[in-house]
Amino acid sequence: FAEQLPEIRKAIQEASFFAIDCEFTGLASDRLIFPFDTPEEVYQKTVEANTQYIIVQFGLCAFRVEPAADDDDESAPTEPRLTYKCYNFYCYPKGRTHIFSCQGESLRFLADHGFDFNKLFREGLSFATEAEAERLRSDLKERQANRAAALQAAADGTADDAEPADVNMVPVPAEHQEQIDETAAKIEAFLQSNDTELIVENCNGFQRKLIYQMIEHKYQQRISTSTITLENNHKCIKVERKRTAQEDQAIEQKRVAQENEDLQTMIGLSVVLQELSKARKLVIGHNIFLDLLYTIRQFFKPLPTDFKEFKKLTKEIFPLLLDTKYLCTNAEIKVNVNSSILAHVYEAVSKAPFSIPKVQSGMPEYGYSVEEQKEHEAGYDAYLTGLCFLGLASRFNMDLQNLTKDATLKQYLNKIFIARLLDNNYINLNGKEPTHSREHIFYVTFPETWRTGDIVGKFKPFGSVHISWLNNTSAFVSLHNRIASSSVLKTIGYHPGFAVHSFAQFTQMKLQRLGFKRRRDDSAGAGKQGASAGATAGTKRTATADNSNAKKEAKEKGETLGNEEDELASDGDEQDANDGDAGADGWRTVKRARTTFATNDDW
Amino acid sequence: FAEQLPEIRKAIQEASFFAIDCEFTGLASDRLIFPFDTPEEVYQKTVEANTQYIIVQFGLCAFRVEPAADDDDESAPTEPRLTYKCYNFYCYPKGRTHIFSCQGESLRFLADHGFDFNKLFREGLSFATEAEAERLRSDLKERQANRAAALQAAADGTADDAEPADVNMVPVPAEHQEQIDETAAKIEAFLQSNDTELIVENCNGFQRKLIYQMIEHKYQQRISTSTITLENNHKCIKVERKRTAQEDQAIEQKRVAQENEDLQTMIGLSVVLQELSKARKLVIGHNIFLDLLYTIRQFFKPLPTDFKEFKKLTKEIFPLLLDTKYLCTNAEIKVNVNSSILAHVYEAVSKAPFSIPKVQSGMPEYGYSVEEQKEHEAGYDAYLTGLCFLGLASRFNMDLQNLTKDATLKQYLNKIFIARLLDNNYINLNGKEPTHSREHIFYVTFPETWRTGDIVGKFKPFGSVHISWLNNTSAFVSLHNRIASSSVLKTIGYHPGFAVHSFAQFTQMKLQRLGFKRRRDDSAGAGKQGASAGATAGTKRTATADNSNAKKEAKEKGETLGNEEDELASDGDEQDANDGDAGADGWRTVKRARTTFATNDDW
Repeated sequence: FAEQLPEIRKAIQEASFFAIDCEFTGLASDRLIFPFDTPEEVYQKTVEANTQYIIVQFGLCAFRVEPAADDDDESAPTEPRLTYKCYNFYCYPKGRTHIFSCQGESLRFLADHGFDFNKLFREGLSFATEAEAERLRSDLKERQANRAAALQAAADGTADDAEPADVNMVPVPAEHQEQIDETAAKIEAFLQSNDTELIVENCNGFQRKLIYQMIEHKYQQRISTSTITLENNHKCIKVERKRTAQEDQAIEQKRVAQENEDLQTMIGLSVVLQELSKARKLVIGHNIFLDLLYTIRQFFKPLPTDFKEFKKLTKEIFPLLLDTKYLCTNAEIKVNVNSSILAHVYEAVSKAPFSIPKVQSGMPEYGYSVEEQKEHEAGYDAYLTGLCFLGLASRFNMDLQNLTKDATLKQYLNKIFIARLLDNNYINLNGKEPTHSREHIFYVTFPETWRTGDIVGKFKPFGSVHISWLNNTSAFVSLHNRIASSSVLKTIGYHPGFAVHSFAQFTQMKLQRLGFKRRRDDSAGAGKQGASAGATAGTKRTATADNSNAKKEAKEKGETLGNEEDELASDGDEQDANDGDAGADGWRTVKRARTTFATNDDW
Repeated sequence: FAEQLPEIRKAIQEASFFAIDCEFTGLASDRLIFPFDTPEEVYQKTVEANTQYIIVQFGLCAFRVEPAADDDDESAPTEPRLTYKCYNFYCYPKGRTHIFSCQGESLRFLADHGFDFNKLFREGLSFATEAEAERLRSDLKERQANRAAALQAAADGTADDAEPADVNMVPVPAEHQEQIDETAAKIEAFLQSNDTELIVENCNGFQRKLIYQMIEHKYQQRISTSTITLENNHKCIKVERKRTAQEDQAIEQKRVAQENEDLQTMIGLSVVLQELSKARKLVIGHNIFLDLLYTIRQFFKPLPTDFKEFKKLTKEIFPLLLDTKYLCTNAEIKVNVNSSILAHVYEAVSKAPFSIPKVQSGMPEYGYSVEEQKEHEAGYDAYLTGLCFLGLASRFNMDLQNLTKDATLKQYLNKIFIARLLDNNYINLNGKEPTHSREHIFYVTFPETWRTGDIVGKFKPFGSVHISWLNNTSAFVSLHNRIASSSVLKTIGYHPGFAVHSFAQFTQMKLQRLGFKRRRDDSAGAGKQGASAGATAGTKRTATADNSNAKKEAKEKGETLGNEEDELASDGDEQDANDGDAGADGWRTVKRARTTFATNDDW
């Protein structure tokens, strides 16, 4: 990595735009997301959930656009020349205090797709936030300065001996005295011999401490020591004849060089991300919300709780972001791209009226081919995202040499798609999100035995409705005929256990609940509740079982026997691939809600 | 696994005793453990920390003791014949709701020792607690019963058609109408053709839902559907001609069989642990505290917060436990085994006055050899633990055929070693732990500039002392001369910023703090504090730097540049191997405390 870093920096500096993709150890839970939440609420719920998932693979594909080589050459078209350099970084934290979370299915999913975890854990590049990197740098600087001063003092003979060594000595417990005496005898023999070193083995840490102490006390002037680690990982003391000041100085120089190298290793991949940020160029991702949040948290700064702060920070780090999933909501594109799952988008833009320009690998030995089907390798997905973008861009005849000036693209820049929302489905980093009237939406609670027909029946006087289930006893109902909204609360039919609230009332109740919010254990209790709710919902509908086979039934009915569930994966877009789009209608949201909300307490 | 399960059950049933070992994704933090804590406090702190680490490898070595084959055979000695069967289970949770934690260094450590994580994530055996297994069983039973009833009703023609299908229909959004119509046309063509099936591709979940709905509405009597997953993981709809009731019945039978098999897969390894528990035999482990806690939590029941409840539960699950690390505290053994790290114990008991009897593999094709150096493979460590036990047992001439009746062994049964404690170093599952006077121990706080000499100076009038550092400004001081204890608080010298508290006062302060306890983020803030405290301690002592090399200095001085730290590993005993024993003197505790306690707030 250190060797290739200059090449990578160069690729970033020369690139015209980037596509990125990340693989995570888990996905943020969206069980707390309501279909009518605002983007701000989604952001805050995601940050508050405070999951400790990490990015384990970062894919960076740098695309370069160059003017057509030579206009006079008759064989050369006037189209610009496109090349890419794609990097697939494994990343894994160094340092023993680093704790992170995993979702069982996410790692299984990645392993099934060829992700090499043994390589990840052994060779993954470390990372650090800006503050962590700064702390590592200043701590190391201070330690090295102190050591330099001590070495200088020793060389000058001015070392501070004010504190007698004996005061700090650990008393030797009786059972260890024999071993200490034996070691001392061995050292005496060693000093008489011609051997260059003596290895003292089979000691635990405390015993080594006692021996070091004895050596310092009795042999300080004649012996130098060091700890070495044997092949079997056991630690030993290496005893040598006293080193000279010059030898000590040489050792210190080597040590400083090693420490500086180790520091770079600790900061690792963050250097690349810093370079990417510094480039101030267009960065493209598909369904980029979680990638963005995790990238900022892992390589730059903690995520702010304040939504405006988040927007400000994001623009500081990546001033030009494009989410191709949001670009797919463009009406002209939707005509031909009816699913915005990455692989479906690629398939759609490979055909007319789209056309993907020819892109050549800038590193011939490392190119990807779209036939390779390396889906869910971050580098490949970044590459595919870039191709999808080029395909989508072809629909608008964008000038690839002046992308950020394109009027169409500008409308989609810095807007981050948010799944699971029925409207309001993006974050606008450049300003406020639009607001939508909620007057035609009602929050209803009802007996557990009720089904769609019961709710539809109650709302019959107000025209056709759309139902977003939250759990077995509550749902959102939206009227297609908004004019009827004002009369609902006054005139809707009565039924024991049935209650209708305006959306404003619902929001009020939600805020009240937040006041009493308990910290919930996301991994244990909540998960179980979700699973059993799924089972209940499945059971309830089994009486109308249709003619499909086992797998289909399990999926469509929300029945949950762990290993049949396939909704979780390791990147946001794949989750989507399994779940389907939450798109315009929100049926999927209904189904998800039924399987993931257990009781009213679950919000 | 399912195939070998009967063999494994048999091995458990025929065994005389077991040795076990586990590998975890992380270790419980011991930064909150004080050297004078009671075992109850350690248990409670460990449970309250509520880490979500899991066991990823369970090693079970079943030893069998048989009487000497034939007394008349002159070549046969009268010693019993010993055989072992060793199993090394990878275990990994199935089910999407399962979230767990990892310590970065733990997984790196295991990967470096040959642990195959790709195998773990792809093939690891699942597990379930007793309650989870019960829930899975009853949910499945209910679902199968409901489906059976529905199928019966369909066959009898008594299916409930009271609810008209249209009421539940999702309205088709305009942009999807064309696709639905196209699919309907394809189905018409299919019905006219001789094809056996029609595959509908390239739909997201919502689109599939709309198509299923259209089929159910228009073709219910003529078409059966199912969801299939292509090689590239995309989902499609498979359309076939309507199945007969008999065909549906056959499909249902296959499905039930598959579900039952899946249920067993979900419960997975827990079946083996249940069998082990049922055997009611001696179970041996080395430094077994965390193995025991994690095993109970993962395969049996949640850990009770009440200490007595924990003891009761543990004895219900494993009535006869032996911790060889605690056995090593036996005075006769200590003479020859001066380090209780597993590999050191093995080396010690391989020599006189110990002798390890000959043990043969009961499954010749799968035997371990001690030369293999497969340390930190759970199965190998379990095997080594068993050999260590046999070696230690030889010192007392234990009758291997009547182990649990042995008078010496009885003193060590059901006592679980607790590291990091200066006395009180075990949990007694059979009753109360002994209490120790704390009258000679004082909690002192002092200016950050103080060093050992300053504290020793203040205590000079009361004789020699032992200091257990907690952080840069606090420590425990114990008097060797206990008689002097009563005069300390009255007569100790004054210094600004220096304060001395009795241990009773310290306990009182601790309880008060508990009242205000905040939830602390174990992974982020606290870890960082620990690291910076380490750096500070290192810096502070650099002026007296001795003549050792980089590695040794970093280690002995508590300096922390992440990748030089080697204290964390993936099982409790290895942690110990790196740290040294917290044993009688507690020097290591001092050092650890200095690197892991940042401020007084840290308790």
